[in-house]
Amino acid sequence: MLKIAVLGCGRIGRMHAENIHAHPRAELAGVFDVFAPAASEVSQKLGVTNFASAEDVFASENVDAVLIATSTPTHADFIEQAVAAGKPILCEKPIDLSLDRVNVCARNISGSELPIMLGFVRRFDPGHRAVRLAIEAGQIGDLHQVVITSRDPGMAPDAYMEASGGIFRDMTIHDFDMARFILGEEVTEVFATGSRLVNPALMERLNDWDTVSVVLTTASGKQCIINNSRKATYGYDQRVEAFGSEGMAVSENRRPHMTTLHRGDFTGQGAPLLNFFIDRYAEAFAAEIDAFVDTIENRVAPDVGFEDGRQALVLAEAALKSVIECRPVKTSELG
Amino acid sequence: MLKIAVLGCGRIGRMHAENIHAHPRAELAGVFDVFAPAASEVSQKLGVTNFASAEDVFASENVDAVLIATSTPTHADFIEQAVAAGKPILCEKPIDLSLDRVNVCARNISGSELPIMLGFVRRFDPGHRAVRLAIEAGQIGDLHQVVITSRDPGMAPDAYMEASGGIFRDMTIHDFDMARFILGEEVTEVFATGSRLVNPALMERLNDWDTVSVVLTTASGKQCIINNSRKATYGYDQRVEAFGSEGMAVSENRRPHMTTLHRGDFTGQGAPLLNFFIDRYAEAFAAEIDAFVDTIENRVAPDVGFEDGRQALVLAEAALKSVIECRPVKTSELG
Amino acid sequence: MLKIAVLGCGRIGRMHAENIHAHPRAELAGVFDVFAPAASEVSQKLGVTNFASAEDVFASENVDAVLIATSTPTHADFIEQAVAAGKPILCEKPIDLSLDRVNVCARNISGSELPIMLGFVRRFDPGHRAVRLAIEAGQIGDLHQVVITSRDPGMAPDAYMEASGGIFRDMTIHDFDMARFILGEEVTEVFATGSRLVNPALMERLNDWDTVSVVLTTASGKQCIINNSRKATYGYDQRVEAFGSEGMAVSENRRPHMTTLHRGDFTGQGAPLLNFFIDRYAEAFAAEIDAFVDTIENRVAPDVGFEDGRQALVLAEAALKSVIECRPVKTSELG
Amino acid sequence: MLKIAVLGCGRIGRMHAENIHAHPRAELAGVFDVFAPAASEVSQKLGVTNFASAEDVFASENVDAVLIATSTPTHADFIEQAVAAGKPILCEKPIDLSLDRVNVCARNISGSELPIMLGFVRRFDPGHRAVRLAIEAGQIGDLHQVVITSRDPGMAPDAYMEASGGIFRDMTIHDFDMARFILGEEVTEVFATGSRLVNPALMERLNDWDTVSVVLTTASGKQCIINNSRKATYGYDQRVEAFGSEGMAVSENRRPHMTTLHRGDFTGQGAPLLNFFIDRYAEAFAAEIDAFVDTIENRVAPDVGFEDGRQALVLAEAALKSVIECRPVKTSELG
Repeated sequence: MLKIAVLGCGRIGRMHAENIHAHPRAELAGVFDVFAPAASEVSQKLGVTNFASAEDVFASENVDAVLIATSTPTHADFIEQAVAAGKPILCEKPIDLSLDRVNVCARNISGSELPIMLGFVRRFDPGHRAVRLAIEAGQIGDLHQVVITSRDPGMAPDAYMEASGGIFRDMTIHDFDMARFILGEEVTEVFATGSRLVNPALMERLNDWDTVSVVLTTASGKQCIINNSRKATYGYDQRVEAFGSEGMAVSENRRPHMTTLHRGDFTGQGAPLLNFFIDRYAEAFAAEIDAFVDTIENRVAPDVGFEDGRQALVLAEAALKSVIECRPVKTSELG
Repeated sequence: MLKIAVLGCGRIGRMHAENIHAHPRAELAGVFDVFAPAASEVSQKLGVTNFASAEDVFASENVDAVLIATSTPTHADFIEQAVAAGKPILCEKPIDLSLDRVNVCARNISGSELPIMLGFVRRFDPGHRAVRLAIEAGQIGDLHQVVITSRDPGMAPDAYMEASGGIFRDMTIHDFDMARFILGEEVTEVFATGSRLVNPALMERLNDWDTVSVVLTTASGKQCIINNSRKATYGYDQRVEAFGSEGMAVSENRRPHMTTLHRGDFTGQGAPLLNFFIDRYAEAFAAEIDAFVDTIENRVAPDVGFEDGRQALVLAEAALKSVIECRPVKTSELG
Repeated sequence: MLKIAVLGCGRIGRMHAENIHAHPRAELAGVFDVFAPAASEVSQKLGVTNFASAEDVFASENVDAVLIATSTPTHADFIEQAVAAGKPILCEKPIDLSLDRVNVCARNISGSELPIMLGFVRRFDPGHRAVRLAIEAGQIGDLHQVVITSRDPGMAPDAYMEASGGIFRDMTIHDFDMARFILGEEVTEVFATGSRLVNPALMERLNDWDTVSVVLTTASGKQCIINNSRKATYGYDQRVEAFGSEGMAVSENRRPHMTTLHRGDFTGQGAPLLNFFIDRYAEAFAAEIDAFVDTIENRVAPDVGFEDGRQALVLAEAALKSVIECRPVKTSELG
Repeated sequence: MLKIAVLGCGRIGRMHAENIHAHPRAELAGVFDVFAPAASEVSQKLGVTNFASAEDVFASENVDAVLIATSTPTHADFIEQAVAAGKPILCEKPIDLSLDRVNVCARNISGSELPIMLGFVRRFDPGHRAVRLAIEAGQIGDLHQVVITSRDPGMAPDAYMEASGGIFRDMTIHDFDMARFILGEEVTEVFATGSRLVNPALMERLNDWDTVSVVLTTASGKQCIINNSRKATYGYDQRVEAFGSEGMAVSENRRPHMTTLHRGDFTGQGAPLLNFFIDRYAEAFAAEIDAFVDTIENRVAPDVGFEDGRQALVLAEAALKSVIECRPVKTSELG
């Protein structure tokens, strides 16, 4: 049994703790949260250690690996500490809101061969993954266009929005990673357009956007379009379409069940899409833990690592620059 | 140009008249209706002859073929007259409500080689036809089970219901023909169950049923289930499912368009299914005229002829007997 | 934590053991299997007790409740022993292949107020359950017709088929329970027709059928149709349709993911349906354990109990009698 | 009966001629084609006049209106001649490949109040129209994003491509019009990216692109994305998605029928999408003629007129400039 400790007991940390607890080849080594009651609740419910500090987690001989689900500003520090302690890492995205800090972190941990896996959970979604597998199997021929639709069911609280780093670093970053996952080729140019349509006053105040469209292009001419909105009233809209010389693969939205209603005024589902990310990506979050366990057991590099986290942030920075300067931005401009 | 006259200018006769008018290789030779204003309206709108009597139609040298869309009790007489006059026939179902009258008609016209086509329009529906083509192409292997769902959008006026001959002869008869079309083998046994759930008082008075389920079996053991209701609030429910040793083919419902709505309370179509039979089977009605023209031009036997009309009525009689006697009925019992 | 022991470590028992292990409010108290290596493998993997006998399980103070997933002939005995030992029970279907034995068991345990839950897992499927919830919420008005399609992905090994008790007691029994769950009213008459189309030689030898259609009716005239086949090449076909005075609810098939392929020769999923019952009903099996834990914690009667198991068997007996005697059978004939 | 003559008897002209012939309130007044045998074939099949010249058509007292389906370079001239002759016009897109020529034509016909309708047929598609109706009915709240997917089933012959004016003027022009139809607000900025992926050698030679993505924005911040490819192996991919503050409306692809196949290797349709534009938009082409007849009968302005044709061309020019200059282009730059 691989013993994994969880740092951060917010809703995403709690969910990871339960998934580790349920995993047949892993066990939950304990939890930590800077807000003690949060960790205490989880430790009692699942009968595991409540660590007094992150340092204690890293120092514990009873911990084989760590899952970092704390607030974003702590990620880079904890990655460095975990590397120093020799503990394999699964870290929630983003590594940091600052590309500079990420680059510093990269230097600080260079040379380490510890597995560092980034929590781009959507790569583990069976539907999105089926798109990539279809491409790899040649079922759509050469890839030409990718369309990623990603709309949140509703806007987070103002406090969250203020600390989020803006839509590109907080929300689109998942889509930038998905684009790289599907394109299989680095993006060379980013054009983004941003609007303030959901909550114009807040967006104005934060100098942010709630509705964005992004066009990515690669050296070979592949095109990828990303649509984002902070608020889809019909649920969590998560689709990936890949179009190629021999066909198309589309990962459609998931629903709470496959039951439809037929009535005089409508025929379809009498419900919105799944609208909570933990429900929508439940299978993906479980598969992510599975992949992390595999990575450590088999001593292989994770499918999605530190550099993937850095590249997604490069695209976020390029998109931000594109909106501000009203022009397409080469990723090479960001070094 | 093949000159076709239409007898009967009710809504189905009018629709046929317009389809003949629009057909590139046929022209409307004229119309007749016992209720003169009905024929007059069509003749003026489409600029064609308004025949004074059915006899005039049959006698006209300007008429190459006739389409009989008059009331059911006239069908057998008009078929006999048209045969005597040497005019090929497309006749709406049923031939007659009485199997005896149909058998007499069969004897009266025996020996004639004129094309007599029965208006079982659903055979010409691209979707239902695709099911049969899939079977013929071996795509589902040997056929094992057929499920036909056929529910009307609403009950016809009481006067119509009283003269209809009951649900089996009026409504299920289409499904009996569809069963024969898909099964490709004669039915040997019929079990039917009938309920009075939509309008119990009327059904009680008419000694009829508004909700029926029927099981048909063939000599080789193929099974076919038919579900009927006189009232589906969500539109005209018309589906055919064929299950076989190598797969399944399903003709799903048609909709007014392929546009879906996604909202907080539902995701689907903000509309019922197509709910008028002329809209639902618009392509089929046009294809039926096309097949009739082909049949005459190519001097071949029609795909669906007099004997098909008779066999469907045999199944209707068997179903009626089954409900009344609460037992499965062999078709051989009906001669 | 509720301590649940699992009797029977075949594939279904193993799956239950893992679900109990993963449940946040339950723990796996141990396992037993008459074939010791099967239990040993599970006990080692999940780190729990390997009981030496069923008697040890029932006698253990460390066991709060039992899940019976052993072979069918042991079910009734184990239910009686568990009741004697005061352990709440979740028992896989069927209680027994013999209605007489079930009736004896019912008498032997009468008076006990212990929760005895029957493993009709499909009641816990989110899709099928949504159909019932739609009915309860009045979304389809008064229920008129139910169509249950249930086709296995392939035939079990001959040895299993020989001991299965025939298609009605082994396979259709799930659909009989689903019919009762959806109809909300007892069935009064059963008509069944059986064919030998998938493996005629084997069916002939076993005096069994591999393809059946069943019509159930209730006192108020509700109709329910069940279609079964032992072999659907396209996967595990599991659908429930409820039609009523105000609309229709349909629980459609589930798929491995929502990804479609569009190519020149087809558009759809490049894969069959989920074809293993443990995958198809994964959420339902987890929800079943959840309901069992709730039942015990809240000291309420289970949603699906012993009498439900008995009634499903009554319908199976009636269907069998119907096919053999070629007539509709009243459930009252079976006492 | 409104008498309409058709100029141009290529495949699109022939289709229009048949639709006029079939229309209950219009008749085909005759046809003309510079290639006489083409017109001759149509005139004989439908029994109408074969005009010796376009001049004869415009001069004929037997012609109430004209449908221009000749080659693009003749459109502007014929529009001017028809206006001079006082004949209402339905003209296929584009008015001309040159925005200058269109502007000259606009001046030449200014002052005329004759109905001039542009053949942007997709506006008449029931599905795309349902999206606009949903927006107008407030069903999706305020419009935020539009996604138009438009991929041809295959590349036209080289000779056609060479004379087409390039992808933006020939193909995307339909999508530019659809964008304006759905957005309900003029586009202020265009960003386009073009790739050569389907036939790089030909595209290189023509200085054209076969794969383009375009982002349109309006003054209020609405965003519209268009995806084009010259070759979709799975048929004619035609979708329109509108996303708003209260929901989403999506016009999905149409299929030859609603029949699906379920087999071990796939579940879906055993066929591509409808892949010929005349089939895909059959209902729209008929509705277009209907709208033209209505326009003339009711003496109202057409829903889609000359200025719509001009504006679509402005967007095409802006897109072309955007790809060439690698920057977003304001529509105001094009005057």
